[in-house]
Amino acid sequence: MSSSTMIMKKISLKNIASPKGFKATGIHCGLKHKKKDLALLFSEVPASVAGVFTTNAIKAAPLLITKDVVYQTGKIQAIIVNSGNANACTGKQGMADAYTMQKLTAEKLGIARNLVGVASTGVIGEMMKMDPIITGIQQLEPIDELEGAIGFSQSIMTTDTVTKNTAYKTMIDGKEVIIAGTAKGSGMIEPNMATMLGFITTDANIESKYLQSALKSITDITFNSITVDGDTSTNDMVIVMANGMAENNTLTPDHPEWENFVKTLHAVSQDLAKMIAKDGEGATKLIEVEVKGAISDVEARKIAKTVVGSPLVKTAVFGNDANWGRIIAAVGYSGATLDPYAITIHLGSTKVVENGEPVSFSEEDLIVYLKQPEVKIFVDIHQGAGHGLAWGCDLTYDYVQINASYRS
Amino acid sequence: MSSSTMIMKKISLKNIASPKGFKATGIHCGLKHKKKDLALLFSEVPASVAGVFTTNAIKAAPLLITKDVVYQTGKIQAIIVNSGNANACTGKQGMADAYTMQKLTAEKLGIARNLVGVASTGVIGEMMKMDPIITGIQQLEPIDELEGAIGFSQSIMTTDTVTKNTAYKTMIDGKEVIIAGTAKGSGMIEPNMATMLGFITTDANIESKYLQSALKSITDITFNSITVDGDTSTNDMVIVMANGMAENNTLTPDHPEWENFVKTLHAVSQDLAKMIAKDGEGATKLIEVEVKGAISDVEARKIAKTVVGSPLVKTAVFGNDANWGRIIAAVGYSGATLDPYAITIHLGSTKVVENGEPVSFSEEDLIVYLKQPEVKIFVDIHQGAGHGLAWGCDLTYDYVQINASYRS
Repeated sequence: MSSSTMIMKKISLKNIASPKGFKATGIHCGLKHKKKDLALLFSEVPASVAGVFTTNAIKAAPLLITKDVVYQTGKIQAIIVNSGNANACTGKQGMADAYTMQKLTAEKLGIARNLVGVASTGVIGEMMKMDPIITGIQQLEPIDELEGAIGFSQSIMTTDTVTKNTAYKTMIDGKEVIIAGTAKGSGMIEPNMATMLGFITTDANIESKYLQSALKSITDITFNSITVDGDTSTNDMVIVMANGMAENNTLTPDHPEWENFVKTLHAVSQDLAKMIAKDGEGATKLIEVEVKGAISDVEARKIAKTVVGSPLVKTAVFGNDANWGRIIAAVGYSGATLDPYAITIHLGSTKVVENGEPVSFSEEDLIVYLKQPEVKIFVDIHQGAGHGLAWGCDLTYDYVQINASYRS
Repeated sequence: MSSSTMIMKKISLKNIASPKGFKATGIHCGLKHKKKDLALLFSEVPASVAGVFTTNAIKAAPLLITKDVVYQTGKIQAIIVNSGNANACTGKQGMADAYTMQKLTAEKLGIARNLVGVASTGVIGEMMKMDPIITGIQQLEPIDELEGAIGFSQSIMTTDTVTKNTAYKTMIDGKEVIIAGTAKGSGMIEPNMATMLGFITTDANIESKYLQSALKSITDITFNSITVDGDTSTNDMVIVMANGMAENNTLTPDHPEWENFVKTLHAVSQDLAKMIAKDGEGATKLIEVEVKGAISDVEARKIAKTVVGSPLVKTAVFGNDANWGRIIAAVGYSGATLDPYAITIHLGSTKVVENGEPVSFSEEDLIVYLKQPEVKIFVDIHQGAGHGLAWGCDLTYDYVQINASYRS
């Protein structure tokens, strides 16, 4: 495949340490009983940075520090992340602790403090145990190998059951550019960021301001289009680090291959978003809802989000029940402009509603379909050209079990 | 107690057939396997009427007919109700079936067709079985005794586990006025009506337009302040029938005892709303959230609704887990104006958060408290005088079980 025809390609076994100049690691420092809980992502040179953050009015201390790195410093070289404690609602001491994490990481790496981002995930409202973190930071030795990236991905998990990684490559100015990402879910997942952390690395050469605008436009149709339970957390963030070591000409929206870059970043973000939805707490299935015919893309996404977030739809999918009445009811309360008698619904390839009324279908075939690990719901409301996608998961006994006993 | 000092009094063993001139009944006609599924409420004389209806864009056929009775006829004398089938998304045949229910009921009672309301609850998108309904309507013999009211309340249940009834009396112009109500829940319960039906009877003498304005103002702080799962149904309605047989002077907002009437109607509505929340699908506990210090009552209710609707708060209460971090996170994403460092939270009488930070408390004492059948959460955000209440229930294994297999 020549560089002129390749837009992007998914690459297996690649990870956040694969773009040139990136290293990662993750260790057990002692915030959790046994599992890894402290992670470091590092670029050999200061990288352009973009970030999107929770819209929750209650923001965790580390998030405030990382926001300053993104908006004040405008560059980033490292991110220190812990799981096991969200460092949220922890007042002045929490801010002091987050600053300590930033400072010790900078000293350990020999870089400026304001180039270090901080992220935390875990229980809200408990003071950080700083002794294990202080000792742990000294032990962090990031490497540019798979092992380091896996350690990082494992260390940021809370109730996640699997690590979440993806990587793509594209060609820009004849140079190979890699964009890779890792993320954690998996409860409190809802638009406008949730208890999710996402870290994306690339060796592309791009200024922070354009990286930020690309990330923001992509976030609405990826990370903000998933939902697990509608709860929005205090700690969410997605950070992109672009260190320029691929040596392409600086990317701007006027660059002839700008769209290659944006599409590749979009692919990475969508992969991570879907992985988070699929690994929602207690989930057994990924649900994708695709809406066509809305009066705008925004309304189409609103309908898709409403359907995929409906507890009754989620439990029906869990129970392999082709209960399309709950789907159309959710379409109806989405608030979107629609005509009740112009709605078509498919479950997979099976039409179940036409003109807002039931059509006959084989329940047996649909049960087989609904038992698949990925269930697709298509809704066409025939009002316009608006199109949108959203992802979520089924609601199961395990969701209740996980969350009824999270702290114990 | 003299009539001049009594505002209102709860009266036990009274019901929707207790106000003068009302009769009720409920039978098994055959839409369900064994349980009662057809109900009739009747007033000896045409009654003033008020109604509030679902905001879902998809509206069931019977709801459209009852809306016409409320807004076109302006009077009502009977309501025919079935459970087991929602008659929603059933197209022209569904409308014809609902009109048939209205017509046959009117003929059976010897009254005008446009004085008969129709309500249905059950599965969406299945055509009505009309044979059992046609036969059933002929068998309905409403009576003004407890047995009739209980039969009515039983016949409107779907996944409800208990019937929901309440009654109060007040004095107006020296006449005893009774207001009584019954309702059904219990999934798809969310603001702006849900899969809930509410029927309130009173012998008060009041014009429909004033009854409507009283009901609307009360609905926001009662029926619209409960949530079970955030799903809004196609069939919800609350209907108030006031037949004037108490012979008080006609009530208007200028009547000296207008507030007595409104407070009594509010008490009936709040009782029913709380009973619906408490009997939410799979629920083991009623959760009440009271918010003070918001910049308005509307914002206070918004916060209260957000907290009581959070799946993570609901599962924590189910698990007897004093996980206040989820409460403050929900306050944060409610969208209300607030200062993260000016939030106080109590669980029952135990303070768990002050100035947005944790305070020490006895986990053991809170576990005992959280095991009670009613859990109260108090939030003060110290921004103004706004006050609001909302009610919900815990999220349990049984919610998942009920909804994963509803149709089977």
